[in-house]
Amino acid sequence: MAGKMEDIVSLCKRRGFIWQGSDVYGGMAGTWDFGPLGVALKRRIMSTWWNYWVEGRDDMYGVDAAIIMNPKTWEASGHTATFADPLVECNECHGRFRADKLVEGANESISTEEFKARNAKCPTCGKVNWSDIRKFNMMFQTHVGPVDDDSSIAYLRPETAQGIFTNYKNVVDTIYPDLPFGLAQQGKAFRNEISPRDFVLRDRECEQMEIEYFVNPADWKESFDALHDAYHKFLTEEMGLDADLIHDFEVAPEDRAHYSKHTIDIMFDYPNGQEELMGLAYRTDFDLMNIQKASNKSMEYIPKGGGERFVPHVIEPSIGVERLLLAVLSCAYREEEKDGKKRTILALPEHLAPYRFCVSPLLKNKPELVAKAREVYDLLRKKYGNVTWDDSGNIGKRYLKQDEIGTPKCVVVDFDSLEDDSVTIRDRDTTEQVRVKIAEL
Amino acid sequence: MAGKMEDIVSLCKRRGFIWQGSDVYGGMAGTWDFGPLGVALKRRIMSTWWNYWVEGRDDMYGVDAAIIMNPKTWEASGHTATFADPLVECNECHGRFRADKLVEGANESISTEEFKARNAKCPTCGKVNWSDIRKFNMMFQTHVGPVDDDSSIAYLRPETAQGIFTNYKNVVDTIYPDLPFGLAQQGKAFRNEISPRDFVLRDRECEQMEIEYFVNPADWKESFDALHDAYHKFLTEEMGLDADLIHDFEVAPEDRAHYSKHTIDIMFDYPNGQEELMGLAYRTDFDLMNIQKASNKSMEYIPKGGGERFVPHVIEPSIGVERLLLAVLSCAYREEEKDGKKRTILALPEHLAPYRFCVSPLLKNKPELVAKAREVYDLLRKKYGNVTWDDSGNIGKRYLKQDEIGTPKCVVVDFDSLEDDSVTIRDRDTTEQVRVKIAEL
Repeated sequence: MAGKMEDIVSLCKRRGFIWQGSDVYGGMAGTWDFGPLGVALKRRIMSTWWNYWVEGRDDMYGVDAAIIMNPKTWEASGHTATFADPLVECNECHGRFRADKLVEGANESISTEEFKARNAKCPTCGKVNWSDIRKFNMMFQTHVGPVDDDSSIAYLRPETAQGIFTNYKNVVDTIYPDLPFGLAQQGKAFRNEISPRDFVLRDRECEQMEIEYFVNPADWKESFDALHDAYHKFLTEEMGLDADLIHDFEVAPEDRAHYSKHTIDIMFDYPNGQEELMGLAYRTDFDLMNIQKASNKSMEYIPKGGGERFVPHVIEPSIGVERLLLAVLSCAYREEEKDGKKRTILALPEHLAPYRFCVSPLLKNKPELVAKAREVYDLLRKKYGNVTWDDSGNIGKRYLKQDEIGTPKCVVVDFDSLEDDSVTIRDRDTTEQVRVKIAEL
Repeated sequence: MAGKMEDIVSLCKRRGFIWQGSDVYGGMAGTWDFGPLGVALKRRIMSTWWNYWVEGRDDMYGVDAAIIMNPKTWEASGHTATFADPLVECNECHGRFRADKLVEGANESISTEEFKARNAKCPTCGKVNWSDIRKFNMMFQTHVGPVDDDSSIAYLRPETAQGIFTNYKNVVDTIYPDLPFGLAQQGKAFRNEISPRDFVLRDRECEQMEIEYFVNPADWKESFDALHDAYHKFLTEEMGLDADLIHDFEVAPEDRAHYSKHTIDIMFDYPNGQEELMGLAYRTDFDLMNIQKASNKSMEYIPKGGGERFVPHVIEPSIGVERLLLAVLSCAYREEEKDGKKRTILALPEHLAPYRFCVSPLLKNKPELVAKAREVYDLLRKKYGNVTWDDSGNIGKRYLKQDEIGTPKCVVVDFDSLEDDSVTIRDRDTTEQVRVKIAEL
């Protein structure tokens, strides 16, 4: 049986995967903290992504830009002008809300006239007395340096993409990669969401993994399709997502972002409904041309084989770590009942599980078992790194706990081990147990 | 010959390790972007740290907290009140400066009276007409949510430490680790430095790697010394730092931070002088007691073997990735002249080098050499991941380039390789060449 969203959230909290940010102080809306198991899972997802997309390919290079960028970045990209939500204020209680969330069937381009015609009640005070809609910019603003005026305004980056585009020229000038090539970045992005919600799906701070793939404009479709295929492979084979839960959705021209000429949203069936997992956008030369204009520096690429220089076009596959992690958890989570016994399993792929093995002595109060089990533990940890030790409670309880945190194999040292140098290995998914020589682990 | 700071900065820029942040727009003071080679080096330093301190130990657990925390965090920690620099304004030109940087021998606690007695000239206009000193808080401030008033103020975290302390209770409640145990975090921290300077040493945005190690107060010294020893081992053995350049400096009681009862700063001889590389502080129960008071939640730990519950004390080893990376580069950088030929070498430890191998065909225009070299390249990449391909220029130039970016081994496929299935491996540090069978690589 697959899990409901609240079961997954509850497991995350109970076992130390994900907690509300600043939980001890009553929380901070829209932020989340990762506990020991969550960090382990997050790090494995991120390093698997990096190995797959950057180290595993000839045509990809990493960059890592600062979070606080020169504000010209956001003027050139259009974020200062357009990265905004429609906001209304209740003239009675002064509560502020997203206009498009107060009336059914509306979207972000709703006008004041349309909104007022719908007579929505204020969710706080129940009155109907609204301000005009004003655009609320979702970038977090701060001031850099000792002076707090307009000249010192800066923003937390709302996406990692511009941290890549602004480094394109430096990469070409120093490394001069063959075209097509991609620049990849992992890092935090910030959005001042008015109503953060849906667990980690709509948060104010998220970890993005973005690639900007620079191509000859004549070849954009070929690269788009190749990256699209590779991503499906990555999601299913590397992340263990169920292919039936993944749906491509070609965004209609009128719904596409202004910079895109072709967009596919990859949707995922989360337990609480279908949501965007990631996007692939053909951004054309929109960003590089903006930077060229704003910086007065040429963004042209000189083809190595000769021929006219040109400004490359860009394909952007973009995914958020938290959304991906929640999809991984959704696919892994299941509840099972067998012989009247219930258990919860996190059937994570082995290379993503926080721990690959759990090592236990059958009994905690037998020093010879404990000593032998420590030997096995040290041996496995040297080999695999991520191995955990558990000597709490009885063996049945330990299995239940390890199932719930996704440990694929439990290794138990019992009295026979002292004689035959073998251990029992119990499988998370099948619960089957096999006897294996320690030397063959 | 060791390098001067400007040589290292120049290499970083020329080869794509580190660029000024937002370089294309004329930069953003105090921020730095990592190019392809810099990201590779930074990631290896960070993952080596994580493997050493977290996955390689039984007593350490990871956490990963949000950057924007509940502002109560910074009231409780004292940052809102005390994380401040002494700032003066020139009454003539309205330039703002750190008072302690304008007069020799002053420190952050300089008073207005002392400052004015020194008659410092304004660095901008040359006049001597100063405002009183006011305290300038170095936390970047922003507003969360749709309303910009005092109730929505939040800060970018100035340290990762509080992201660990605020999660202590959740970790104990879910994982209940044996004491002593450590919580480790890697992540960005932000300081609104008035005068960022010295390359990445004093920047506005840095990546911290912090451990808060929770101990029984009776045992603090033992844990302090053990972590201190382990860090020296880590710095020299894992990071390749020259032990002669590392100096312990016990901070005098009057110079210690208010929360600390014992602090050792580990200083490093950078090319431009000695600077703090990292710190080890005995923070006592200062932070947990503050949180206990501010949150009204107990921070006590219940000893597993029985006995009185108590609030643990804390040892904090704290290091910044950029400072460590610059120390690694300083130790690795050298210039050499042999037989009238100059070369620059980045003698990075093999496990930190951006690329472990560079594979080349002797000549680029011989398809059979290129094909064979690709085979070798694919083989090595499958095995090691971080392998680069270089068929540009002549072989001598390729060696010079790979020496400069720190690639330990260059593998060259020549005409003999087609016959004997062997390749030439040339060593970065010795320039010696050996012939090796491809099957034995």
